[in-house]
Amino acid sequence: MGLTATYLFPTDANQQKIAEQHALGLTIGSWTDIPHLEQEQLKKHKGEVISVEKGELKDTVKIFYPSANFSADLPAILTTVYGKLSFFEGYELIDMDFDADLLGKFPGPRFGTKGIREQLGVYDRPLLKAIFKGVMGKDLKFFSSQLEDLLAGGIDLIKDDEILFENELTPFLKRITTAKEIIHNHYENTGARALYAVNLSGRTHELHEKAEQAAELGANALLFNVHAYGLDALQGLRENNNVGLPILAHSALSGVLAGQAGHGYSYSLLVGKLTRLIGGDLSLYPSPYGNVAIPLSDALAINQALTEENGFEQTFSVPSAGIHPGMVPQLVNDFGDNLVVNAGGGIFGHSDGPTAGAQAFRAAIDASVQKISLQEAAKTSKPLQQAITQWGVIEPN
Amino acid sequence: MGLTATYLFPTDANQQKIAEQHALGLTIGSWTDIPHLEQEQLKKHKGEVISVEKGELKDTVKIFYPSANFSADLPAILTTVYGKLSFFEGYELIDMDFDADLLGKFPGPRFGTKGIREQLGVYDRPLLKAIFKGVMGKDLKFFSSQLEDLLAGGIDLIKDDEILFENELTPFLKRITTAKEIIHNHYENTGARALYAVNLSGRTHELHEKAEQAAELGANALLFNVHAYGLDALQGLRENNNVGLPILAHSALSGVLAGQAGHGYSYSLLVGKLTRLIGGDLSLYPSPYGNVAIPLSDALAINQALTEENGFEQTFSVPSAGIHPGMVPQLVNDFGDNLVVNAGGGIFGHSDGPTAGAQAFRAAIDASVQKISLQEAAKTSKPLQQAITQWGVIEPN
Repeated sequence: MGLTATYLFPTDANQQKIAEQHALGLTIGSWTDIPHLEQEQLKKHKGEVISVEKGELKDTVKIFYPSANFSADLPAILTTVYGKLSFFEGYELIDMDFDADLLGKFPGPRFGTKGIREQLGVYDRPLLKAIFKGVMGKDLKFFSSQLEDLLAGGIDLIKDDEILFENELTPFLKRITTAKEIIHNHYENTGARALYAVNLSGRTHELHEKAEQAAELGANALLFNVHAYGLDALQGLRENNNVGLPILAHSALSGVLAGQAGHGYSYSLLVGKLTRLIGGDLSLYPSPYGNVAIPLSDALAINQALTEENGFEQTFSVPSAGIHPGMVPQLVNDFGDNLVVNAGGGIFGHSDGPTAGAQAFRAAIDASVQKISLQEAAKTSKPLQQAITQWGVIEPN
Repeated sequence: MGLTATYLFPTDANQQKIAEQHALGLTIGSWTDIPHLEQEQLKKHKGEVISVEKGELKDTVKIFYPSANFSADLPAILTTVYGKLSFFEGYELIDMDFDADLLGKFPGPRFGTKGIREQLGVYDRPLLKAIFKGVMGKDLKFFSSQLEDLLAGGIDLIKDDEILFENELTPFLKRITTAKEIIHNHYENTGARALYAVNLSGRTHELHEKAEQAAELGANALLFNVHAYGLDALQGLRENNNVGLPILAHSALSGVLAGQAGHGYSYSLLVGKLTRLIGGDLSLYPSPYGNVAIPLSDALAINQALTEENGFEQTFSVPSAGIHPGMVPQLVNDFGDNLVVNAGGGIFGHSDGPTAGAQAFRAAIDASVQKISLQEAAKTSKPLQQAITQWGVIEPN
């Protein structure tokens, strides 16, 4: 039992030998110079090269690490498989396959796509998510009015800007109670529910207390900059039953870990598979469309890792940046219809304001479900008509 | 008040404009389209481009971020200055300068070089540190005998292998109590003290409890894979007065954050300046000499950041890998004489065993203090003579 790590190493004629040295060096150190009796004793700790597949620039190397060597937590696992190898130029860690014993130690999402949909009571269309805009330096009145405008436009979810931290004008706890009341009133008036992911931030050792306090005050979702804290911190929050809230994992800072071509983790492993295993209910990452973008192939690989059958709940894919209503057909074409359409500028940039901006998105989402063109849908939606005039329609490839 | 981040961006004719967009985008979003009254209100949150210096391949860009925008913790700070920019290909974060308000929020090392020397009672020479070797799969008897051999050879410090985690054969708490007794006996017999850095590992939310338990049981130092948990986790441990132990920050996994040419953090910022500010008493990083190596310029920049005058205690520099007794003159030449000489293979590979291996190092270290050649010193040290025969002497450049 253990895990198999898949790496890309710069191609080398002696790759098999190099891989075997690493497999030993990262487990029991050496083998051939160990007496036979000791070999028996150490066998269950020995790393093994599973395969070496030659490539043009990089060879694909798979190494097996026995569970006996590490505790079942990601800090130990990542230190084992990549702690030292990360220092080798161009050594990429692109995947990890966990045997059942280890896989069973991960919680997976508490809610996932199914649970989030149940919370919202929305089952039949992509969800619409907005981002608070320009709250920094503004007060709770500004925050409230923005939330009301967005809810009026039909958003399902909303999150803090990931760079909004604890501050005097819109304190963490006040944002929670303020949003709770507004969302509750909105439900009373319209029957529509919404989730607000408040940015859980601050010191590592205070996260659980803050998250529990947030839950107690009625927060209904958390935003978490997981890569500022390490994956294990999110897993701990997911497992804390006194928190019990959906967690939106934000990919901020993951560009340094996965975003540099030819180096580091693959996005599909870090922002896809691992983010799902540790319990992210939603995973937000750069879309391939905006000015902060990742390659389409990476975005699709993340999406697949978040949603493919693996025994855990599915994590909602939230490709973000550069999304306006005219891009909804492209988004659904690329990522499927069980996703979260996430917009900031595409809502706030609408010339008739954020309510119309959200309405335009909802009309575009409905059109995608009804399989009618945006142009057709715009005939009965003035906001969508206006959005198309502003930004045009991107026809899916 | 705030901080100034120094970046390298791929060179661009419009760099000033690009930098200004980032400075706004990462703070208040926009400026020119904001009414004058609001500008007054938002002024104290506005990011500012301090300078743009054109380079051949990269331009050096300095951006100021006001303290008003984030809480005084590294997760918030790093998310602000690099959360989004990390997604831009080739955007490097090479330095951060903190104004006094922020700088004062960092604890710095609890002990540092001065405190560690006081604990050991050794003031006049580089320290010698060993790494347990091949403990994985072995029991406490093996662990004990290795420790005794190394102490007999005159080591000052020893650490677990960073990939030794909680395990049945040598459990965390047992390693602590076993080592404590052996180190105590050694002191009773010889008057020489030693520090053993036990690997503090496992789940993020259990670190403080485990560290406190370790301290209570008489651990006298902690090894911590800080990059598996995030810098802030180490800072929390440093600030916990119920722990109060020297912390050896291990650089495992930092290769993915800082080790890929042209990307990510600079080593001097991550493994140097920030590791010191958060409270690492010792910082272990790859030396420029071994098979797991970083460039000499990076190693020297780390060393400088750990030791230069900045109002905090100095952090011990522990350049590691590829070090044998014949390299001590080179090490002292490169890193100065207030450092930790750290060896694994260079001690255990000695043909007369680890005690002789450690003795050879101590003789080489004494020679460096007395400013005599290793060849000269070897005349009165058989272990050093043997080490020189095995590995030779590297004459400093």
